[in-house]
Amino acid sequence: MKQVKFKFPSATFNCYFDADFSFLETLVPRENVILVTDENVATKYAERFMPYRTIVLKAGEEYKQQATVDHLINELIKHKADRQTFLIGVGGGVITDITGYAASVYMRGIRFAFAPTTVLAMVDACVGGKNGVDVGVYKNLVGVVKHPEFLLYDYSFLKTLPQEEWINGFAEIIKHACIKDRAMFKFLEKNTLDTFQNYPDEAAKLIRQNVEIKYGIVSRDEKETGDRKLLNFGHTLGHAIENMYLLPHGNAVSIGMVAACTLSEALKGFSSKEKKRVTAVLERYHLPVNFSFDKEKVWEVLLMDKKKTGDTMNFILLDKIGEGVIKPIPIAKLKEIFNHSL
Amino acid sequence: MKQVKFKFPSATFNCYFDADFSFLETLVPRENVILVTDENVATKYAERFMPYRTIVLKAGEEYKQQATVDHLINELIKHKADRQTFLIGVGGGVITDITGYAASVYMRGIRFAFAPTTVLAMVDACVGGKNGVDVGVYKNLVGVVKHPEFLLYDYSFLKTLPQEEWINGFAEIIKHACIKDRAMFKFLEKNTLDTFQNYPDEAAKLIRQNVEIKYGIVSRDEKETGDRKLLNFGHTLGHAIENMYLLPHGNAVSIGMVAACTLSEALKGFSSKEKKRVTAVLERYHLPVNFSFDKEKVWEVLLMDKKKTGDTMNFILLDKIGEGVIKPIPIAKLKEIFNHSL
Repeated sequence: MKQVKFKFPSATFNCYFDADFSFLETLVPRENVILVTDENVATKYAERFMPYRTIVLKAGEEYKQQATVDHLINELIKHKADRQTFLIGVGGGVITDITGYAASVYMRGIRFAFAPTTVLAMVDACVGGKNGVDVGVYKNLVGVVKHPEFLLYDYSFLKTLPQEEWINGFAEIIKHACIKDRAMFKFLEKNTLDTFQNYPDEAAKLIRQNVEIKYGIVSRDEKETGDRKLLNFGHTLGHAIENMYLLPHGNAVSIGMVAACTLSEALKGFSSKEKKRVTAVLERYHLPVNFSFDKEKVWEVLLMDKKKTGDTMNFILLDKIGEGVIKPIPIAKLKEIFNHSL
Repeated sequence: MKQVKFKFPSATFNCYFDADFSFLETLVPRENVILVTDENVATKYAERFMPYRTIVLKAGEEYKQQATVDHLINELIKHKADRQTFLIGVGGGVITDITGYAASVYMRGIRFAFAPTTVLAMVDACVGGKNGVDVGVYKNLVGVVKHPEFLLYDYSFLKTLPQEEWINGFAEIIKHACIKDRAMFKFLEKNTLDTFQNYPDEAAKLIRQNVEIKYGIVSRDEKETGDRKLLNFGHTLGHAIENMYLLPHGNAVSIGMVAACTLSEALKGFSSKEKKRVTAVLERYHLPVNFSFDKEKVWEVLLMDKKKTGDTMNFILLDKIGEGVIKPIPIAKLKEIFNHSL
């Protein structure tokens, strides 16, 4: 187990990498803990969770809605949760987003931390303090920014992670490579998903590297006035199609990254050779690179993106692989490209 | 108009006392504003609100629930509200609480401010940054602490304030006097509600004095680790009975203050003479001092109070009029007093 302290302007938290889930009992008094997890995880790890009070939510992005938060709040009331209660979100990004959000508003804020069980939650969703829920098709439209007190990385959860969830997680890893880390991009080009699935130490190393990339970006720009926006690479179109077509998050982001590469070609002189490399690496990790969608409907959802301010949308493009840039695009111009080039 | 800057550790905001509502247009560009108000206020002040996009919510504490927040969020989506949007809550405490909460979570936080229209909102609900909604009978069980950017006090709204809302507001004024300001208590003993209703300047002076009392307490203890708890005087029993018996907030708090005086007698040697003075001043402002309730049911709700931690409840008592104190009471002891003395 390796403890690393991460500092943000608004908070500090500890990451316990390569820890055992049972280490939780040294971090929080058992009687204060309530675990929040989903049906899939609860079924597989019933024994591990036995010592704790546990609230089990339905699994899946379609339940990342206010109704689930309402249900969780009512369960907390049944457990007579008070300001000494400490919520631990144990699951993928949906569970950690909901847990962080509910904990931030229950009694105007109780303590919380996460034990992520998916690659996506480990490298992305758990890091940075963004939490919340979707509103219908609009992704993460409500929420707050509040960091968990700690992250407990027990990689043994990955042993039961379904193939599609591995794939999902790699979309965010490839995203990090595209916007910030050309060397990691090359490393990904040389490997395959099998490598990381069969060699847990390699997976652990890659996950930690990605946590540090994301932490680096977020800690320098917690309020997302600049560089943090880069993390939205692939997420503008991605979010617009994700809930409408019930796509797994990583798949939606993959399609969004290809679209952002096309925009980068049109607007930033991103080379078509580099675009092919991005497409190839996405395919290498079994991610989709084509998708046909209803342009009119998707455009309407896209206009509600949180990165839109007035008549401009901040779009994330690539100068080259490993160098993301923020480009404010007038909505009219974006619509033109959207209609003709995507 | 008198501008006063209030500083909290986490934020600064301006109070515009004795301002005209139309002053709003100098504070926020009109196209960014969305007013949030209730049916009662909207009907009376349609003309005043004409220049602005306005979302009208149902009136009453029974609508201070998540469902109303969900509705407001959906209305914001219809208005295509983005991070440039600035919400102005125009109404009583229910409207300002809901507006502050929705603004704090919509797109993880957009800008907001308040124009309070009731005495209660002016002296209490708008000041201090607490916002949120009830969950069934549990008062303010979810919410966040975030300050509005400014408060605009247009006292002309009070001209149409119903009598029962004047009475409600004076419960919080009497509370401030009880815990912090013996001189103001004496002043209240010498006056009547009529004075303040008939002499707007007297009302304005009293309101501003109360804003400053509350600000003084909150600014020294924003996170409610100490002195801010005093503001809960009368609110523990008050909150427990309010939603169960559909009592106006001020009435519930009045009954709660009488109960807290009884506890103060039993536990802190608060004199029965002073208790009589508190009861008399409440009655002078037409507030109820007796109420019979189902002890078992109310006790269950009271146990969910946010001031309970583990086996102890922080109760607010009086040493004497003008001096509130925080007293941690073991739950078992509290139950005994609750059953035999209240």
